[in-house]
Amino acid sequence: MDNALFDKWQQILAAQPFSVFVGAELAEASSDRVQLRLPIREHHKQNFGFVHGGVIGYLADNALTFAGAIRLGTSSVTAEMKINYIRPAIGDHLIARAEAISGGRSQAVTRCDVFVVSEGQEKLCAAAQATIVALPKP
Amino acid sequence: MDNALFDKWQQILAAQPFSVFVGAELAEASSDRVQLRLPIREHHKQNFGFVHGGVIGYLADNALTFAGAIRLGTSSVTAEMKINYIRPAIGDHLIARAEAISGGRSQAVTRCDVFVVSEGQEKLCAAAQATIVALPKP
Amino acid sequence: MDNALFDKWQQILAAQPFSVFVGAELAEASSDRVQLRLPIREHHKQNFGFVHGGVIGYLADNALTFAGAIRLGTSSVTAEMKINYIRPAIGDHLIARAEAISGGRSQAVTRCDVFVVSEGQEKLCAAAQATIVALPKP
Amino acid sequence: MDNALFDKWQQILAAQPFSVFVGAELAEASSDRVQLRLPIREHHKQNFGFVHGGVIGYLADNALTFAGAIRLGTSSVTAEMKINYIRPAIGDHLIARAEAISGGRSQAVTRCDVFVVSEGQEKLCAAAQATIVALPKP
Repeated sequence: MDNALFDKWQQILAAQPFSVFVGAELAEASSDRVQLRLPIREHHKQNFGFVHGGVIGYLADNALTFAGAIRLGTSSVTAEMKINYIRPAIGDHLIARAEAISGGRSQAVTRCDVFVVSEGQEKLCAAAQATIVALPKP
Repeated sequence: MDNALFDKWQQILAAQPFSVFVGAELAEASSDRVQLRLPIREHHKQNFGFVHGGVIGYLADNALTFAGAIRLGTSSVTAEMKINYIRPAIGDHLIARAEAISGGRSQAVTRCDVFVVSEGQEKLCAAAQATIVALPKP
Repeated sequence: MDNALFDKWQQILAAQPFSVFVGAELAEASSDRVQLRLPIREHHKQNFGFVHGGVIGYLADNALTFAGAIRLGTSSVTAEMKINYIRPAIGDHLIARAEAISGGRSQAVTRCDVFVVSEGQEKLCAAAQATIVALPKP
Repeated sequence: MDNALFDKWQQILAAQPFSVFVGAELAEASSDRVQLRLPIREHHKQNFGFVHGGVIGYLADNALTFAGAIRLGTSSVTAEMKINYIRPAIGDHLIARAEAISGGRSQAVTRCDVFVVSEGQEKLCAAAQATIVALPKP
């Protein structure tokens, strides 16, 4: 069952041209938690040599939306997101971990922590919170 | 003078590997306003065929940071950002317009509207607000 | 017509026990803009002698919700709000000015600037952005 | 030691005229967590009979600031806050629980969950995230 959920969301990620372009990978998708992983490449950086905030924001956004959509159980979009950038991201890869903290019929609230991993050590580099809204049934 | 400011920020944008990777262009950089432009390509989209929220968030983030740094007059980073996604972005290109609404020695507050342009018509697709913080002088 | 709108929202404000308790007054309610006014009293302050952030947040929240509900044309609630505190509020009264920047059938995005007024001079002390959601029809 | 911390922050709360006016009580203040409690009174409500969002926002704001200031170890202010309202608050009292998720020399990021308690049962009614900034030493 969780495998089916994972497969479903891996296919959705693969169907997002921007996620493929950026290089995000699904590491976990369950009713409890979503994890996205991004190996850091040169083209992810900004002018100081850190990962660009836009990359971190993208990863958080995607994890937040997935976690909300899983909770809502239907096609959903991100109505809004807020992200705090906590430390410069320098390392091997990023991990975004998101979970739904509430969810009704039409709306979920989700939180996400983004970690930068360097030589196996995780450091929190951003924290986000979002509102995910179910799309009206067609 | 404004030309010098524009040239400076165009060089900073060109020095951001992720901005080059995504394809953002500087359209305006003045003490009043920053505009970034992004021609929409297939690889910017998500699974519904709209521009991915992460692309819109990236463009807003960069415009917000530039507007804040120009106000603060020094190297700066985005401490945090909040973005509302208002309508699906379908069109030819995105325009992000940002301005500082306050600025002291160490911190500026900036706002950004992101428009999607289709056949010459602009529609608001996102609205963001951010806190930009001056980096300590080395 | 605008008079009818103003009267309606003044009655709603008067029907909010917390707004009466805090002392907020409606200064404007139109399809373009909502203004709330709060004469600053000793009991609005925090331990440094400034107006408490919670007072400013309350006033912004109320103005944001009113502006969104007017745009949506139906009973509405605030789904979420983000506020930047820009400078300490010291003065005679606060003014919160809010407007809807977008609005569909079910959701509006609103912005609000809060000013502190001292000897007739306005200074921006906070800036907020919110998502207002229409309540389901009974 | 924790008792000293609790006493200190209880005194700070008592020195905030608005907190006294609203009726907030300190329930916990430690390096791990801050809890504020608010017995719900008629004057805390809005026009639908729920606790006004401004009350919930005030309680979250205060808990977020206390948690950040404890982490930073110095006088601090809230630079910005974001709050999601999750369900209408109807009950006996509110509990706001805040913790710092990061903290450096000058800035902390804090999160807060606000619960409404009715007949001993807690329900999450809001979730907030904030940036707390240390005031420059005089």
